[in-house]
Amino acid sequence: MSQQKNDFDVIVIGAGPAGYVAATRATQLGLKTACIDNWDSKKSTPCLGGNYVNGGCISAVALLESAKLFHLANHGLADHGISADNIKADIPKMQKRKEAIVALLNQQVEQIFIDNKVKTIKAHAQLINPNRVEIIPFSDNLPKVITADKIILAAGSSPVELKFAPIDNEFIIDVQKALNLQSVPKTLGIIGAGAIGIELAGIWNKLGTKVVLLEAQESFMTMADQEISDEAFKLYCKQGMDIRLGARVISTNIEQNQVNVEYEDKQGRHQCFFEKLVVASGRKPNTETLIAASADLLLDEEGFVHVDENCCSTLPGVYAIGDLTLSGPMLAHKGIEEGIFVAELIAGQQSPINYHTIPNVIYTDPEIAWVGQTEQDLLAIGENIKTSNFPFSSTSRSQIKGTTSGMVKMIMQADTEVILGVHIIGFLASELIAEAVLAMEFSATAEDLARTIHAHPTLSEAIHESALSLSGRSLHISV
Amino acid sequence: MSQQKNDFDVIVIGAGPAGYVAATRATQLGLKTACIDNWDSKKSTPCLGGNYVNGGCISAVALLESAKLFHLANHGLADHGISADNIKADIPKMQKRKEAIVALLNQQVEQIFIDNKVKTIKAHAQLINPNRVEIIPFSDNLPKVITADKIILAAGSSPVELKFAPIDNEFIIDVQKALNLQSVPKTLGIIGAGAIGIELAGIWNKLGTKVVLLEAQESFMTMADQEISDEAFKLYCKQGMDIRLGARVISTNIEQNQVNVEYEDKQGRHQCFFEKLVVASGRKPNTETLIAASADLLLDEEGFVHVDENCCSTLPGVYAIGDLTLSGPMLAHKGIEEGIFVAELIAGQQSPINYHTIPNVIYTDPEIAWVGQTEQDLLAIGENIKTSNFPFSSTSRSQIKGTTSGMVKMIMQADTEVILGVHIIGFLASELIAEAVLAMEFSATAEDLARTIHAHPTLSEAIHESALSLSGRSLHISV
Repeated sequence: MSQQKNDFDVIVIGAGPAGYVAATRATQLGLKTACIDNWDSKKSTPCLGGNYVNGGCISAVALLESAKLFHLANHGLADHGISADNIKADIPKMQKRKEAIVALLNQQVEQIFIDNKVKTIKAHAQLINPNRVEIIPFSDNLPKVITADKIILAAGSSPVELKFAPIDNEFIIDVQKALNLQSVPKTLGIIGAGAIGIELAGIWNKLGTKVVLLEAQESFMTMADQEISDEAFKLYCKQGMDIRLGARVISTNIEQNQVNVEYEDKQGRHQCFFEKLVVASGRKPNTETLIAASADLLLDEEGFVHVDENCCSTLPGVYAIGDLTLSGPMLAHKGIEEGIFVAELIAGQQSPINYHTIPNVIYTDPEIAWVGQTEQDLLAIGENIKTSNFPFSSTSRSQIKGTTSGMVKMIMQADTEVILGVHIIGFLASELIAEAVLAMEFSATAEDLARTIHAHPTLSEAIHESALSLSGRSLHISV
Repeated sequence: MSQQKNDFDVIVIGAGPAGYVAATRATQLGLKTACIDNWDSKKSTPCLGGNYVNGGCISAVALLESAKLFHLANHGLADHGISADNIKADIPKMQKRKEAIVALLNQQVEQIFIDNKVKTIKAHAQLINPNRVEIIPFSDNLPKVITADKIILAAGSSPVELKFAPIDNEFIIDVQKALNLQSVPKTLGIIGAGAIGIELAGIWNKLGTKVVLLEAQESFMTMADQEISDEAFKLYCKQGMDIRLGARVISTNIEQNQVNVEYEDKQGRHQCFFEKLVVASGRKPNTETLIAASADLLLDEEGFVHVDENCCSTLPGVYAIGDLTLSGPMLAHKGIEEGIFVAELIAGQQSPINYHTIPNVIYTDPEIAWVGQTEQDLLAIGENIKTSNFPFSSTSRSQIKGTTSGMVKMIMQADTEVILGVHIIGFLASELIAEAVLAMEFSATAEDLARTIHAHPTLSEAIHESALSLSGRSLHISV
């Protein structure tokens, strides 16, 4: 591609979902590709997959699965006529199951690279200029430079640190540590009730911890549709989580093997004590050491890479994808799609991403998932909308499963009847959302969904019914 | 509508899913509608909902849910580090839970009729001519005639009886009885390995019964895609079911409190003994007493009502929907769609049913679901196809859930790339199929699905990957 022959057609920095997919797709399209990753497991085993596999997401979902089973064993069997005594959770064994899944996914990414002939480089990397990357390999620690025609930055993100709650990973811990605890803490404070905070809270709450969430914002889950957030708040509180809104932490101190947290809300100052305190107050892009100052690549104030609609940074031929940019939510599948898109773009194809149809998922119990816009956002821009709302309790499948919490909310444009958003809180919302995403990808109307046959009895009928309801033709109702 | 004023605009016979939806939709469209049902629960409680609610389907799915939990408690917890002692199933309590769900759904249909102002008539009914129905009400047993402009027959179906295995409901039992057993039989023979037979087998197998299925056909689950059937056969056998193909039952005898079954297969004659024997060899339309001979309505040899593409019988203004016709599979949601269609047709609307996009679901563990055509059917008509196959074990969500059995198989037309069939065996296939149905409803190509963003980690990624695979762009692979 370039005049002077570079080492690679494409270098990808980062082997998280965005990076490993970009590298895979690039080689599938005939480009000679290297992928550099610096995740250090301190073990000799492979650890590709980024924070998604090694740090947060997979671990959280895996632990929640175990925690839900523990809760089910304690509280869900009796209703079915099943009895059991002496139910116990062996947390180290639970953690080992999770680690085995992580190891399997590490191996899967490793194998994908082998099968697709992606060159894997385990090293720290820094972008020097649009064609050059300096690497410090784990193998010899000797810096060297490798070159490519195109460079894709996919270095991901890390937890934001808080000055007033410095991580010691004994008392004040980060999310990764909180997902690796080997025993059930009696009390757990969590700073931040975002997706990660509430996922963590759900896990330990089910395993028996008294969890308190301290959220600085006055509203709960502002990113979600208000009705869904309200329902979530109600359900979580019912499960025993203590969610304190408008609670701004002022200071933390370790006292007598506990964390003393001082926070302020509208009522004044408060003090509380926790066995452990987790800092879960958002994530920042990993750009601190990623780009040499001399490279002159434009970042915003928070360190995100400025990109155009083609994920191209201010340096020609240098792309940024996934959590490094503000182009969409910090979600694995957003990064994956950008990885595919940029690889195909470099290979001369054009397959733009529809950012309006990126599903959002929060892995709590029940799950929350949505696609498209929220009612409050649509009202704010003056859109003429109609909404409907169907409770899972009115579907026979939910009654059968005993998972009757939650609902499907659908929003359509009032004149065209095109679906603008689908918001789900309920059992397996993460799976049910797939149909809604496809509907929006096809610019479906509510009637299109209403006229589509849904198997009976299924949970997906709640989507069907909310579409039927928008055309005034509800079939099943609450009893 | 007619010259002489009839009692009703529409009479619907049967309050199963097809009937209650037809009646509901008709009243929503302003038609004065009565729905006649003769399900007799021998209790004073309402029992609308037909065989679907009161007989088979809901009960089977509800019991399977309980049976799966019992199996999970015994075999699924340890892997998560959860231990429990003395795990027991109280079958009468399990049955009571199921009955409570049935009662709730009875009440739901009852309430739908009240809300929509459908006139409910509890009576036996017989069609006399295109406008007249003779009823014998439960209340007074005095025959009377009611009239309507249009009549919708939705009387459903019943189990086929076998002369060589007469039901006594003590030793040789029907499906409904088999779903109401109050204790776990040591051994259970089932004649027929169709959907109902294998659903039943799955339930009792998980609760500890030694189950033997006797299937007259030489092949297993011929209605499904061959690859899916093969996988299902393998999985069920692994679970401990004993499925004997090409086994034609010759005689049954009750001997010493057991059923002695004699059957013949290629190897010769065999004898086996069961505590109970279930007859699950298909269903027949409930037309025996539904139509007066004088009405002159055409049935086929097996008693199904002859209908045209508008569900209209040979009598003008008399429609037949659901299990009474051969227009599609005997499934609740097929009946529901026909109910909507006919009600709207009578009201002057036209909303034809796409019979190609009716999902098929078998509620076993794992579930089986498909939409569109099978590979063998497409090859038989010489269609130029490409197929792909993605195992759930390669999705991280399945690893997390510990539900790694099964796969998604996708079939597209090779030239147009339009999806012709999606076949799933795996955990929650019944829910995942919804996305595939919508895709086929929109005549989507495999690339359309491949370009649609799927949340990560989810089971729906198996659908995504099978679509990616058809375009030679697989991302995740088996390890």
